[in-house]
Amino acid sequence: MPATSTRERLVTEAMRLFGEQGYTATSVAQIEAAAGLAPGSGALYHHFTSKEALLDAGIDRQLDRRRAMRDIRALFAGLGDLRSELTMLGRYILAVFDEESQLLKIASRIPSDQSARLNAAYAALVDGLKAELAEWITSWTASISKGEAAMLASVGVDALLGKRLSETLFAVSDADTPDEHYIAEWTSLLASRIETRH
Amino acid sequence: MPATSTRERLVTEAMRLFGEQGYTATSVAQIEAAAGLAPGSGALYHHFTSKEALLDAGIDRQLDRRRAMRDIRALFAGLGDLRSELTMLGRYILAVFDEESQLLKIASRIPSDQSARLNAAYAALVDGLKAELAEWITSWTASISKGEAAMLASVGVDALLGKRLSETLFAVSDADTPDEHYIAEWTSLLASRIETRH
Repeated sequence: MPATSTRERLVTEAMRLFGEQGYTATSVAQIEAAAGLAPGSGALYHHFTSKEALLDAGIDRQLDRRRAMRDIRALFAGLGDLRSELTMLGRYILAVFDEESQLLKIASRIPSDQSARLNAAYAALVDGLKAELAEWITSWTASISKGEAAMLASVGVDALLGKRLSETLFAVSDADTPDEHYIAEWTSLLASRIETRH
Repeated sequence: MPATSTRERLVTEAMRLFGEQGYTATSVAQIEAAAGLAPGSGALYHHFTSKEALLDAGIDRQLDRRRAMRDIRALFAGLGDLRSELTMLGRYILAVFDEESQLLKIASRIPSDQSARLNAAYAALVDGLKAELAEWITSWTASISKGEAAMLASVGVDALLGKRLSETLFAVSDADTPDEHYIAEWTSLLASRIETRH
């Protein structure tokens, strides 16, 4: 089996274990075992200098996927209808959080003094989504200032984030707020605000 | 020192340690030391049967404080102005999350299979706030159905939750979104939606 594949498997299994039981509680031997290497053999160190380097590689892989999703977003731009575009944006933002749920889980469980790199990745993720939504808002209407659009985008992204974090971190059921109904209300809410300024 | 005071100190120090380093990583001896008892002496067991019982007591204390805050909310009802009341509600909801931030930290760091009690407390907290906001919305306007009000309240509470969780769990700076500006936008957003249906 080529080395790249072992490397990939180490990243995948490490991120899964970090998400399930926490970064601190996960040992190098556990990661080796999960990736099909002899546990405790130190075979992991042929690919990564440390557990921390492995986490860094996992974060980098997540950020790569994030860039791929940003390209997808361009596909549904320019529908020309406020509510249709907002609906697509809402679904897109939730999809990004789903893609990043492993990162969110790992970041939330790491003691804050060990988590600078993860917190930075998390902040970049959320800030990026807020900037995308703010840019869309200002492209839609000139009567909202950049500062107002940024604040509106913050509230909009945080609403979707709050929903997903509750579900991901605290096992809150989404039975009362299925995604499609939630996005419909989210769209109405943002559309009302934008239309009153249009 | 009376037993009630030691008991209180144990709950306070245990919740602080659970929040800082996680429930699993905190030992009974550490809690004893933090509460001024001989570490490893088992003195904790004069007050609580287990670490789990101590966590339960901590959760109960948080829920008690929550009830006290609900009474405070009655003080600013009936201002008669949509935006004033919404502003107060937004500040109130953020204040509740601040009061509960320790619980949020502890809940987010506990492996999901050990956290049924905490997840239930968390769900009750968020659901309670959503119910309060939904009730206020339907009392304000009869033209929004209960179902719509519930969904709107979910989006509204989740927005404030998303902001606070980002700050509490991921050390995201609130420099770009200071509370007062954020609440102002949150108020405009919800008011626009309610007024279009009024």
